[in-house]
Amino acid sequence: MDKELVVGYIGLGLMGKPIACNILKAGFQVVVYNRSRSKMQELIDKGALEGTSPADVTKQSDIVFTNLPDSPDVLKVALGPNGIVEGTHPGLVFIDNSTIKPAAARQISEALLTRGVLCLDAPVSGGDIGAQQGTLTIMVGGPKEALDKAYPVLKVIGKKITHVGGSGAGQIAKAANQIMVAAQMVAMGELLILSQKAGADPAKVIEAICSGAAQCWTLDNKPHRLFDGNRSPGFKAYMQAKDLGIVMDTAKEYGVVLPSTAVNTQLFNAMLEMGMRELDNSAVIGVIESLCGTKLGE
Amino acid sequence: MDKELVVGYIGLGLMGKPIACNILKAGFQVVVYNRSRSKMQELIDKGALEGTSPADVTKQSDIVFTNLPDSPDVLKVALGPNGIVEGTHPGLVFIDNSTIKPAAARQISEALLTRGVLCLDAPVSGGDIGAQQGTLTIMVGGPKEALDKAYPVLKVIGKKITHVGGSGAGQIAKAANQIMVAAQMVAMGELLILSQKAGADPAKVIEAICSGAAQCWTLDNKPHRLFDGNRSPGFKAYMQAKDLGIVMDTAKEYGVVLPSTAVNTQLFNAMLEMGMRELDNSAVIGVIESLCGTKLGE
Repeated sequence: MDKELVVGYIGLGLMGKPIACNILKAGFQVVVYNRSRSKMQELIDKGALEGTSPADVTKQSDIVFTNLPDSPDVLKVALGPNGIVEGTHPGLVFIDNSTIKPAAARQISEALLTRGVLCLDAPVSGGDIGAQQGTLTIMVGGPKEALDKAYPVLKVIGKKITHVGGSGAGQIAKAANQIMVAAQMVAMGELLILSQKAGADPAKVIEAICSGAAQCWTLDNKPHRLFDGNRSPGFKAYMQAKDLGIVMDTAKEYGVVLPSTAVNTQLFNAMLEMGMRELDNSAVIGVIESLCGTKLGE
Repeated sequence: MDKELVVGYIGLGLMGKPIACNILKAGFQVVVYNRSRSKMQELIDKGALEGTSPADVTKQSDIVFTNLPDSPDVLKVALGPNGIVEGTHPGLVFIDNSTIKPAAARQISEALLTRGVLCLDAPVSGGDIGAQQGTLTIMVGGPKEALDKAYPVLKVIGKKITHVGGSGAGQIAKAANQIMVAAQMVAMGELLILSQKAGADPAKVIEAICSGAAQCWTLDNKPHRLFDGNRSPGFKAYMQAKDLGIVMDTAKEYGVVLPSTAVNTQLFNAMLEMGMRELDNSAVIGVIESLCGTKLGE
């Protein structure tokens, strides 16, 4: 039976911890590992086993997940000393929930395939709330047989699972997602400040445009938070900037020119330099405010 | 009774003609004027009266509309020789359905107010199909008493009518709308080309991201047209470029810096120079294709 699968989960951060909790709650046996040991305790208290290294977790698991900050972290945990590569065994599936470069996902997949391991890149969107509620969107790249095996586990962490294509395709979809999200966030900031400085009530402008051709998730969800003075995450600015760095690196790697995303990347990078790294990505309006010498609501 | 209102309509283009038709169909008496006489015939055949000039239409009307290409056209028809200003009378309401500069709308409103005329700037969105079906979004700036008087007419041409604020506020909302629409169109082009060149199926990528934080009207409505090779309007590129010109002029006028919209404006301007002026605004992907030496679907 599916529930007899042993699932390893490495990286218990803002996203990884609630995802691992949901896998545990669904009845799978879970083995966890996190570099700072304290983050494991909550899961151990709920019945998870403790691994001593990524290799150790991997040895005990049928499916092993990672959820780490950036490409170098996943490369190290997958292919480095005491990494997943040192715990592989027949039938193992490796799934990375991190957002990393498509090229890094492909490199890991190729390296582990030589040991008979099938890999899925499976970045998610939906934030910490989606992770807690098990309602993430999961963008999957890699062989279908690995997805079929992992499906019972993936369906407890996400409500929409799309098999985008071969190795790296999940990360490409995530990069595409971040291009659109960044564009909406910046456009919202620009249009709110233009509205205010030109003499209209920004809230009335949003009301007028929100259900036409400008309609989007961002205008549906973010303006009322900004009007209330709430710029807390949500999705942190430095994570958005990191993801846009992946987009621009990937664009360069594959010969793609992205004029508008290049500017949006700079605006999110500015947030980091301006002391806004821990704010919500919608707080990119703060960069526009600064450029225009004004504040929303003043 | 409302239906006893006589409505003048000046400018029977792609948008103006179907709007005037709907007003006529709703039972109002309609007087029309268009610079090229041939465009009036269809409405005259349906029972509209023919005006000999904007001043003449205005003399016969309780409410007079304009629907013209750009700010200078509206300024001339409103305030120039044989213009609306020469046909004013007590109780007249002037409504401009064109998309023009907020500052131009304010200038007209101030000039006509000295003759006792109340003005509304009432740009629309929803395209020629929305105009035909009477389902436009109407963004209204100007005095509420003028909106109250015009409401019975406006409600036959639009399904969502928002009173954004005083004179010019409707045009500011339209500018805001175009900032977001342009951002979505360009981001869609960039993410589709990145997906393809990096090795993923663009259609699968759209499927994966369309219902998460990237969701928007543009991704809901445009990708399947592009996958089918359909780049016909819709909303023409040169109109999008013109509207973005208004946005950037307005930004400069009111001391607003719009880094991302500035780039998007350049990309739509490029469409005009590259022979794509008559294509849909989603065809801005053609500029990205050109920059990247590729074509979607190849």
